[in-house]
Amino acid sequence: MIKVGIVGGTGYTGVELLRLLAQHPQAEVVVITSRSEDGVRVCDMFPNLRGHYDGLAFSVPDVATLGACDVVFFATPHGVAHALAGELLSAGTRVIDLSADFRLKDAEEWAKWYGQPHGAPELLPEAVYGLPEVNREQIRQARLIAVPGCYPTATQLGLLPLLEQGLVDADRLIADCKSGVSGAGRAAKVASLFTEAGESMMAYSVKGHRHLPEIRQGLRQAAGRDVGLTFVPHLTPMIRGIHATLYATLVDTSVDLQAVFEQRYASEPFVDVMPAGSHPETRSVRGANVCRIAVHRPQGGELAVVLSVIDNLVKGASGQAIQNMNILFGLDETLGLNAAALLP
Amino acid sequence: MIKVGIVGGTGYTGVELLRLLAQHPQAEVVVITSRSEDGVRVCDMFPNLRGHYDGLAFSVPDVATLGACDVVFFATPHGVAHALAGELLSAGTRVIDLSADFRLKDAEEWAKWYGQPHGAPELLPEAVYGLPEVNREQIRQARLIAVPGCYPTATQLGLLPLLEQGLVDADRLIADCKSGVSGAGRAAKVASLFTEAGESMMAYSVKGHRHLPEIRQGLRQAAGRDVGLTFVPHLTPMIRGIHATLYATLVDTSVDLQAVFEQRYASEPFVDVMPAGSHPETRSVRGANVCRIAVHRPQGGELAVVLSVIDNLVKGASGQAIQNMNILFGLDETLGLNAAALLP
Amino acid sequence: MIKVGIVGGTGYTGVELLRLLAQHPQAEVVVITSRSEDGVRVCDMFPNLRGHYDGLAFSVPDVATLGACDVVFFATPHGVAHALAGELLSAGTRVIDLSADFRLKDAEEWAKWYGQPHGAPELLPEAVYGLPEVNREQIRQARLIAVPGCYPTATQLGLLPLLEQGLVDADRLIADCKSGVSGAGRAAKVASLFTEAGESMMAYSVKGHRHLPEIRQGLRQAAGRDVGLTFVPHLTPMIRGIHATLYATLVDTSVDLQAVFEQRYASEPFVDVMPAGSHPETRSVRGANVCRIAVHRPQGGELAVVLSVIDNLVKGASGQAIQNMNILFGLDETLGLNAAALLP
Amino acid sequence: MIKVGIVGGTGYTGVELLRLLAQHPQAEVVVITSRSEDGVRVCDMFPNLRGHYDGLAFSVPDVATLGACDVVFFATPHGVAHALAGELLSAGTRVIDLSADFRLKDAEEWAKWYGQPHGAPELLPEAVYGLPEVNREQIRQARLIAVPGCYPTATQLGLLPLLEQGLVDADRLIADCKSGVSGAGRAAKVASLFTEAGESMMAYSVKGHRHLPEIRQGLRQAAGRDVGLTFVPHLTPMIRGIHATLYATLVDTSVDLQAVFEQRYASEPFVDVMPAGSHPETRSVRGANVCRIAVHRPQGGELAVVLSVIDNLVKGASGQAIQNMNILFGLDETLGLNAAALLP
Repeated sequence: MIKVGIVGGTGYTGVELLRLLAQHPQAEVVVITSRSEDGVRVCDMFPNLRGHYDGLAFSVPDVATLGACDVVFFATPHGVAHALAGELLSAGTRVIDLSADFRLKDAEEWAKWYGQPHGAPELLPEAVYGLPEVNREQIRQARLIAVPGCYPTATQLGLLPLLEQGLVDADRLIADCKSGVSGAGRAAKVASLFTEAGESMMAYSVKGHRHLPEIRQGLRQAAGRDVGLTFVPHLTPMIRGIHATLYATLVDTSVDLQAVFEQRYASEPFVDVMPAGSHPETRSVRGANVCRIAVHRPQGGELAVVLSVIDNLVKGASGQAIQNMNILFGLDETLGLNAAALLP
Repeated sequence: MIKVGIVGGTGYTGVELLRLLAQHPQAEVVVITSRSEDGVRVCDMFPNLRGHYDGLAFSVPDVATLGACDVVFFATPHGVAHALAGELLSAGTRVIDLSADFRLKDAEEWAKWYGQPHGAPELLPEAVYGLPEVNREQIRQARLIAVPGCYPTATQLGLLPLLEQGLVDADRLIADCKSGVSGAGRAAKVASLFTEAGESMMAYSVKGHRHLPEIRQGLRQAAGRDVGLTFVPHLTPMIRGIHATLYATLVDTSVDLQAVFEQRYASEPFVDVMPAGSHPETRSVRGANVCRIAVHRPQGGELAVVLSVIDNLVKGASGQAIQNMNILFGLDETLGLNAAALLP
Repeated sequence: MIKVGIVGGTGYTGVELLRLLAQHPQAEVVVITSRSEDGVRVCDMFPNLRGHYDGLAFSVPDVATLGACDVVFFATPHGVAHALAGELLSAGTRVIDLSADFRLKDAEEWAKWYGQPHGAPELLPEAVYGLPEVNREQIRQARLIAVPGCYPTATQLGLLPLLEQGLVDADRLIADCKSGVSGAGRAAKVASLFTEAGESMMAYSVKGHRHLPEIRQGLRQAAGRDVGLTFVPHLTPMIRGIHATLYATLVDTSVDLQAVFEQRYASEPFVDVMPAGSHPETRSVRGANVCRIAVHRPQGGELAVVLSVIDNLVKGASGQAIQNMNILFGLDETLGLNAAALLP
Repeated sequence: MIKVGIVGGTGYTGVELLRLLAQHPQAEVVVITSRSEDGVRVCDMFPNLRGHYDGLAFSVPDVATLGACDVVFFATPHGVAHALAGELLSAGTRVIDLSADFRLKDAEEWAKWYGQPHGAPELLPEAVYGLPEVNREQIRQARLIAVPGCYPTATQLGLLPLLEQGLVDADRLIADCKSGVSGAGRAAKVASLFTEAGESMMAYSVKGHRHLPEIRQGLRQAAGRDVGLTFVPHLTPMIRGIHATLYATLVDTSVDLQAVFEQRYASEPFVDVMPAGSHPETRSVRGANVCRIAVHRPQGGELAVVLSVIDNLVKGASGQAIQNMNILFGLDETLGLNAAALLP
């Protein structure tokens, strides 16, 4: 049984970790921390967990207790994992960080986008970017894993097959992404109110969103060269889900795109290449650790249009984190992650 | 391994049976029927099932094939189970009917509410009303089970403790119930369009809803006398969930209502009596086979107000059907039904 | 042209006053205050108003400026109007208060429910409760009007015809009310997030909600005696709308309920008694200053069930406030309030 | 007073015409037709209209009655206006067609996209495409007006300033569009159910949508040359609204895009160019005849990103139809169309 700790369990990625781990046969949550909710039972805060974690309460983070875990998940705002990861690693605990703290390889770029110095640049060389479809072997050996962001997961999985094989013009990529409101977290913000975000659609952060450098870093690695990417995120009136609509100009229109995608993901348990002509719906992955992808070439033109959907809280966060844990501990990669999506 | 057949699998209770049974370690769906979708793979109709039932396709209902199953679920409109149940029982197959066909004990009353003669009155004596919290022992021995309706489940579980002990005036019961739109099924109806049912609340069928006689029958049995019930259902702009707000006049206001409920359901795996003062949310049971209940006595008056929530497609239909199957086949009652609700 | 001031214009009743007054031919908003948004243009905060109030910006509240208005609306949390109303009245300005400050006649009861002493008890004797369907004549003469709350408007309009004529048992009234999330205001609260309030239904404040004493006061006046009322509010996943489902026991079941309601509201411009058998939808009043009502007697029993719907921000707040202004200034009561509801 | 007839008034563009015309001081609806609802009062079908059209009932379409109107709106599926427009024009009635029947200038292309021969090619030469921001002068003289589709309105208004001045590469245009569900009409379709379209996002018709040739025709005219356009529509879980996110490659990045847009629309009453850096929300135009536009150049790159929002039922259909009527009859173009959007 893997002893699991969770730092910062009061947000949506925290409760989603708990929901998913409740079904995991080889993992047990032994500690969950929150400074603000110290002493509160998790099932009093999240009533969906009643009957599952009746004995578990939030506690103030404490390195000794966390360091006694086999693995600690950080479900925190950026900056928190910087401060604690090093000590936990020294204690022999593996760290799986759902925040942005170790996603960017370049500490300077991190500082630029997050508006503060990087708090643990010495750990960057060993941090592994936890996208199993790219880095599965490194994950197996890792001590510190940076779980990809939600937009980056949907976007990279949709574009990798094209870039890895040099099939598209890497200078002119567009990612038009639509996210459910849970992507904004559980913080009390006017813009996330039901009355503000409901029955409306809007773009945001068109100037530059923090996921842009992360996506670019992953695409650059896949392409083996620098890439040009325009990324426009949109807030969509639904709770969960990301729909990435990706545009890339083909360098050779004779390629069989469907075959390219099917071959790339043939042995991936959590990437589903749908039949040609499909339009994946975000609800088809609600609650499930799956990315569904369809690829089109409208009007037989030179533009490839890739549709890529995930649940931002599962394959875009907590599910992917558990997938990383499974790989890290030599378990079946799909353990505890097999539930079908909730539809309707 | 229990061999399962499903008749009429293209509606929401059908896809929900499939979703839940995909997690069940002791059951396997071997046949699923639909006249209109003959030959279509279930995962082509319901993309959330891709990767779970890739070999399963709808077929035209056929008694021989169905009769080779250990149990057949009917996820059909009323009338269909009337026509087929008898033959299947003769073949030795157990029948769990999610439709209304065998819920009412009185064939005349059934005919009145459903506007057609009862098609199999000879089976009524042996049909067991599948509310485990009341009829667990009979379910164990049953060949034919009538799964309760969604409103009846939420309402009965909320009122039973009060009526069984004669704590309230049985002549003046009120059930003000709010249902998500999935209760109306997957049929193409203008009233169920996103544009019609969204961003609006309305009562319907105030004159008389088909679940009224079913609820009355259950409450009568609990009270040991006839009851007076006013039942007002409302259509609520959410996909899943029923919230029953129940009003009953106490005959003795000194009773400890919280204790009454806690004792009644102490050993029930799927009824959660919440702490005094709670307000259960329907999302706390989304996708889960649980009924959460809170009981109040506002202003210390003579009126008990019970709040009872379920997911209409799970504890109100397919989950409860599987719970019945588990009891029927001597399995752990909670097998395959332990997933936590999806929140947010 | 009536010169209008608005105190506290950054909430939903504030922006709704602006939206409605933009169509009013005899009123002009000359000042709108907000301490936090001093200097911000209203159309920068509420982009739906672009092109309508391009020159209007929030300013810090100032008695001299407000006192130069013909009428000042308070769209503020409770307590604010207490502090300012007296001075404005002294300056000869009429005050229409959308908050709860002057709704209850009893300062002690106000203090009990709002947890602070009443700040202006000396003004209570002259404050008029602004429900035109009851107090139209007093409104005409008033200097200080307390606009009814949203639940109280829907509930009183639904029960008044029954109580005024003594047709029901006034000791056993039940109001099961469902409100859209805008009723909770524009404050940043976790419970009002899209991700928390969406796709879910829950009751709240069952122990006692601040609108309870207000409703009871109005019903008592109509009945000419004390009343017993159980009031259970519910949070519904929609932006606007209140659906009140009201239960009252008839003392004489031979009465023609439909006629009672039609006669009571025959000359009311903003109360629509629907045909017998109707089920009003909240969307049928979205954005409109109308209360639609239907009355039922299910199963021919002794219980009258009244369905009453309003838009909480219009007939439940800002629209009703303008209706009061029209009466107060001797205008056609419907001026600026004639737009049809937005459907779908 | 302009005498107005409406053919096919039971869909959403029909009820929206009625809602808007109820506020129009110079127009009166004298006839509204529907074969299926003959004799039904419009306010019985659309309860938001109660009190506005109490004497108006649907009737079977009849050329004599319609021909006595000054103007007839077609709010019908494609093909209907083909059959009737000619006769009405002969009777001296102006025709404003909200369907697709006269939008494409090329009858062959129409036949290809709509799967049937064009029914009135002889009328195409005189049909005017009713986008006032482009064709105001021709509209003034027109007898037959084709009201633009919803996607084409949002997309053309967003791209015209760039194409008219040759500022972008016309071969590489992308329109990633998101529509509310009302765009699919009021027909009973499974895909439009609350339970199917709710809480989900999906692309559709990526292969080719019927609005593609219409948009291309308009852009071609603006550019003065053929254009290359990829158009990907998405179904969004909201009732009303279109958000068009438009991508175009600048030929000269030194141009002041904000100035280009502000100048182009300086005198347009219904196009609102928002301040630089804005992100228009669809709710800011809900119920209003406005297109709000913002233009960005992310990362200072060569790609212009235009955000363009409309209410698909107003500026995308019925509001624009009335705007055309106002122009046609020499009225103030904004008459009856001045209401602010409903927010929240």
